[in-house]
Amino acid sequence: MNDLSEYLKQHRQEHLDWAIELCRIPSISTKAENEADVRRAVEWTHALCSKIGLKSTIHETAGHPLVYAEHCEVPGAPTYLVYGHVDVQPVGKLELWDAGPFEPTIVDDQWLVCRGSADDKGQVLIHLRAAAAWLAVRGKLPVNLKFLIEAEEEIGSPNLAPFVKEHRERLACDQVIISDTGMFEDGYPTITCGTRGLLYKEIKLSGPKHDLHSGTHGGVVGNPATIVAELVASLHDERQQVNIPGFYDDVVPPSDALRKEIAALPFDEAQYVAELGSPGTRGEEGYTTPERRSVRPTLDVNGIYGGYMAEGANTIVPAAAGAKVSMRLVPNQNAEKLSAIFDETIRARCPDAVRLEILNHGCADAYGAPTDSREMQAARRALSEAFGKETALIFEGGSLPILPMFKEVLGADSLMLGFAGPTCNAHGPNEKVRIPDLDAGADAVARTLGYLGG
Amino acid sequence: MNDLSEYLKQHRQEHLDWAIELCRIPSISTKAENEADVRRAVEWTHALCSKIGLKSTIHETAGHPLVYAEHCEVPGAPTYLVYGHVDVQPVGKLELWDAGPFEPTIVDDQWLVCRGSADDKGQVLIHLRAAAAWLAVRGKLPVNLKFLIEAEEEIGSPNLAPFVKEHRERLACDQVIISDTGMFEDGYPTITCGTRGLLYKEIKLSGPKHDLHSGTHGGVVGNPATIVAELVASLHDERQQVNIPGFYDDVVPPSDALRKEIAALPFDEAQYVAELGSPGTRGEEGYTTPERRSVRPTLDVNGIYGGYMAEGANTIVPAAAGAKVSMRLVPNQNAEKLSAIFDETIRARCPDAVRLEILNHGCADAYGAPTDSREMQAARRALSEAFGKETALIFEGGSLPILPMFKEVLGADSLMLGFAGPTCNAHGPNEKVRIPDLDAGADAVARTLGYLGG
Repeated sequence: MNDLSEYLKQHRQEHLDWAIELCRIPSISTKAENEADVRRAVEWTHALCSKIGLKSTIHETAGHPLVYAEHCEVPGAPTYLVYGHVDVQPVGKLELWDAGPFEPTIVDDQWLVCRGSADDKGQVLIHLRAAAAWLAVRGKLPVNLKFLIEAEEEIGSPNLAPFVKEHRERLACDQVIISDTGMFEDGYPTITCGTRGLLYKEIKLSGPKHDLHSGTHGGVVGNPATIVAELVASLHDERQQVNIPGFYDDVVPPSDALRKEIAALPFDEAQYVAELGSPGTRGEEGYTTPERRSVRPTLDVNGIYGGYMAEGANTIVPAAAGAKVSMRLVPNQNAEKLSAIFDETIRARCPDAVRLEILNHGCADAYGAPTDSREMQAARRALSEAFGKETALIFEGGSLPILPMFKEVLGADSLMLGFAGPTCNAHGPNEKVRIPDLDAGADAVARTLGYLGG
Repeated sequence: MNDLSEYLKQHRQEHLDWAIELCRIPSISTKAENEADVRRAVEWTHALCSKIGLKSTIHETAGHPLVYAEHCEVPGAPTYLVYGHVDVQPVGKLELWDAGPFEPTIVDDQWLVCRGSADDKGQVLIHLRAAAAWLAVRGKLPVNLKFLIEAEEEIGSPNLAPFVKEHRERLACDQVIISDTGMFEDGYPTITCGTRGLLYKEIKLSGPKHDLHSGTHGGVVGNPATIVAELVASLHDERQQVNIPGFYDDVVPPSDALRKEIAALPFDEAQYVAELGSPGTRGEEGYTTPERRSVRPTLDVNGIYGGYMAEGANTIVPAAAGAKVSMRLVPNQNAEKLSAIFDETIRARCPDAVRLEILNHGCADAYGAPTDSREMQAARRALSEAFGKETALIFEGGSLPILPMFKEVLGADSLMLGFAGPTCNAHGPNEKVRIPDLDAGADAVARTLGYLGG
């Protein structure tokens, strides 16, 4: 496969320019004002797919459009569906970014810094680079390859499942290949064997019809800010376990073998918290930090709000308050069942001195991939070669709700090849990806396709 | 005193126009951009004082200026110091106002609606109306009267105590008279016998140096939003008592006699919560709503914030979170002592997985007025005559930190005659005052001065 590696090396700058161009487009899928930008990112991707030799089409959905491209010219060879997304998260506070989020910059000669560099534009392009290399150098692909690249992942992919269901014949494949996960360490080739599920809730409380003077009405009417704090605080017990009845009922404790494997991976806790700037860890008693991050379910407050939030003092009883709370679920937990239990629990705990509304922002089961498939073996070999290091198999703490969906609709498992390092800060300011990892990633994927083709 | 009442009736519209003119000035003392407006309100007040026959001067302070005016022409008669303020609170969200906050409107033929109508411009003018009537009709006042009208009350009167200390001889008086409190019900003459103290704290927590992906780092690093909720929730016990060690140590429980007096005042709880739009009450067990609002200490969350607070979902571990918490204290509680205990308690309860900072936004003791003074008796008689109803003596839930200051510096107790109804919504949108209560208030104050003069 050295001819492919050579081609990728020679086209390194051109391929990096692809990432820079695509990342310049502020394709924030959750913001109405960026609708045209999202479409532009889809059109750009479609154009690139066509340019490298794929048959590409743009499909409209009820929301943002998506790209479907394919090159299926090897009868009898296996078929793979590459999934990715070109929409991005909002940028948050601009002052936290060292440069504009959509002005890609190269830092320390190795980091591509901008929104979408890691999640997921940079990673999507790895697959297009590999396909481009095969088509340019060998004039064909070693397998049948399909690309499904959407622009609604960051808003929960509301139109993906309907599309996959409608086109299930066309999308038929042996496995799905996804690069939207992380690496264990920078430069450390990593395959993710499982992702956690996500249950995301918003508790919204309302009390008086407007803010009240707290001297006159405080300590008397139900205070939404006080009560939301109580409800949120009730969600953990003193051992830092999630305090929702039955939450752990279906959780399979990690086996001793798995715990040993996790413990064997390099991890320096002091360095970890120092890098994040956190004063310290806090999590479920009885488990290590790497275990809490991957094979144990967790609950976090993602946001809390209510009343006077600006500088200084305002003596009010707030009219309303709320909290955004999300849970990461592990395989065998049932997100829908827990969703109902969560709602019941909060309803039972909420005093009737406020009105309660619970919003759903996400409900997806965890996913576990088979670790003995020929796809896993081929990828493991290819990654180790391209990165010059033994490949790690890990469980990812984040969630990819599309994985159970692909399994259900297409009957296909997913092979997760992640190329974003642990400090990539996806969803946060100064999102970044290591360019050498993108380069090795393209080489690794080109090799993987070769091994899968036989 | 019918000649005075007659004069006030005849000049009703002119006096209402005073309020409308003064309320048109957006004298928001906390906003730098309104500095000139605050001065304008002070100048307007100074001009009115001069016009009705008082010797008036504007005094500069380190902040906004104040008005001092007097008419001390009755040797041997008692002397009273009328305190009030002509600065106002910010207006908050404009869309919650039915008309511009500084465009006074008359609603239902009886409400003057605008910022400052109740707190405190409308009430300040009651005293100037009464003085104007005496001076116009009788050519003199029955007592020696001094007016101290400042423009920094809504920012905590930072320059009032220095001014009073500096001019303590000039401000010497038998009692202070203040109209900056409320009425028990619209049209129900009310004297406030005590106000609660205020202890206002802000708990600020910081964790990781920026927001983190909650799938990767959730359940692992200390989450400031989770922990602020726990700290806030810890501040009440299950009986809704304030859960700070020693908080109730110095609280004198209300006597049976006082509880009977409070219970005798008309109060319809269902109507109360319905008017506020609140689904229900929630407060310290063992006490009624009127007791909780006046003679018991309380703790309220005035604001809580952290992480992602906008619409929809964002899966982060917030970098920071905080809560604004204020306590209303009753006589005999020591605000400074409790301030130290609060800080100690929060420090002890806060896990070291986050950094903690505690800000102070207010620290003032409660105040109790003597209920058997001749001032109280005179005012009670005058109010009952002017309103045609028995006068209620109440304890106010809010705080007036200047009262203990007047007591300390001038040795003078304060007589609190309040004319803003319970739905006046001071500090909130559509602040309003009942014009008939302003009118009866002026009549009541004119009578009070007469009885005090003998």
